[in-house]
Amino acid sequence: MQSSSYRPGRIFLYKLEHNSELVRSIVDFAKGKRVKMAVFTVVGAVKQARLAYYDQARHEYQQIKLDQPLEIASCSGNLSLKDGKPFAHVHAVLADAAGKTYAGHLIRATVFAAELHLQELLGKKLEREYDPTTGLALWEFGGR
Amino acid sequence: MQSSSYRPGRIFLYKLEHNSELVRSIVDFAKGKRVKMAVFTVVGAVKQARLAYYDQARHEYQQIKLDQPLEIASCSGNLSLKDGKPFAHVHAVLADAAGKTYAGHLIRATVFAAELHLQELLGKKLEREYDPTTGLALWEFGGR
Amino acid sequence: MQSSSYRPGRIFLYKLEHNSELVRSIVDFAKGKRVKMAVFTVVGAVKQARLAYYDQARHEYQQIKLDQPLEIASCSGNLSLKDGKPFAHVHAVLADAAGKTYAGHLIRATVFAAELHLQELLGKKLEREYDPTTGLALWEFGGR
Repeated sequence: MQSSSYRPGRIFLYKLEHNSELVRSIVDFAKGKRVKMAVFTVVGAVKQARLAYYDQARHEYQQIKLDQPLEIASCSGNLSLKDGKPFAHVHAVLADAAGKTYAGHLIRATVFAAELHLQELLGKKLEREYDPTTGLALWEFGGR
Repeated sequence: MQSSSYRPGRIFLYKLEHNSELVRSIVDFAKGKRVKMAVFTVVGAVKQARLAYYDQARHEYQQIKLDQPLEIASCSGNLSLKDGKPFAHVHAVLADAAGKTYAGHLIRATVFAAELHLQELLGKKLEREYDPTTGLALWEFGGR
Repeated sequence: MQSSSYRPGRIFLYKLEHNSELVRSIVDFAKGKRVKMAVFTVVGAVKQARLAYYDQARHEYQQIKLDQPLEIASCSGNLSLKDGKPFAHVHAVLADAAGKTYAGHLIRATVFAAELHLQELLGKKLEREYDPTTGLALWEFGGR
């Protein structure tokens, strides 16, 4: 079965630093607290962002540049391991002054103000491994 | 009071199968784990999707066909009972190659790659029942 | 460190009242249950809404009026204190009949039908205080 069961660990609220890079800040925060597995959400605003869309036929990411201030209307993801190191998989919906939205896989973003809610998961540590069907690094549950 | 209080049960991480139907996969996963009540989120990508918009005046759903690969920028919902069986209420924000978004009630979608985070809720099992004001199947808390 | 660690408290499912104001309903519900700190999500639909975009240069919110029925495609946020009183910070992605989205900071909305999932957080009560860098009321963790 491609699943694991976890017990809830600590829950953190964290105010991300103004001008920090959002994705790296989440990973660095988790490292500092020795969190290995987690799920999280973020609300706030960013100064600029890079989203990505995965081309399912070509197996490659296309970048979407957003060089403007945007609200983080929705941002959620999970933390697991990739190449033995903490890795954050983050998706986001961003909104401009007219309420128009841009969304996808979040590569990076510069924080204006952002509040992280992170739920630590206690149990099996999942490692991402290359999946030939999709070309993506997906969770390997082992012992099927 | 139209609410219930729950204790946190198991938390699951589940890799949905490539080419499976997303909403049914969540319900089937919950059934397999004997989960009755839950809240969940999904990140990933789909090959195609059917969203719905509820016409609040006519009391009927209008379908939105999306026959293209899309990122799951946000997907969240809950699991309760309808007609005595597990039922998933799912909303989603999907994004295309330009970062343009499509959103609403998620009827079904074909999984390209998707990661489910499901929080089991221990406590009162809620059943959905017809609500004449909205025409929707809403939670019945009973014993008001 | 600009963070606090919490233990999970009660989890609530709450059916918001038809025609109630969404943001105030969340705050009033939390007050009624004596919840001080929480994170939450909402799925459902609204009759109309007011979103806001924060102008990062001028340090002021711009309002976005949406006078039409909309699906709540995503809605998440947190509850903490501001001026000593419970305050909900809510962001949302709303969708119209064509699946087109409008998103940002949610000021208020009239509920058509909505389901709240609220996770109580047990631990330090955070108070929002004026932050001169952003002009926003951000969490003050104290004792740095």
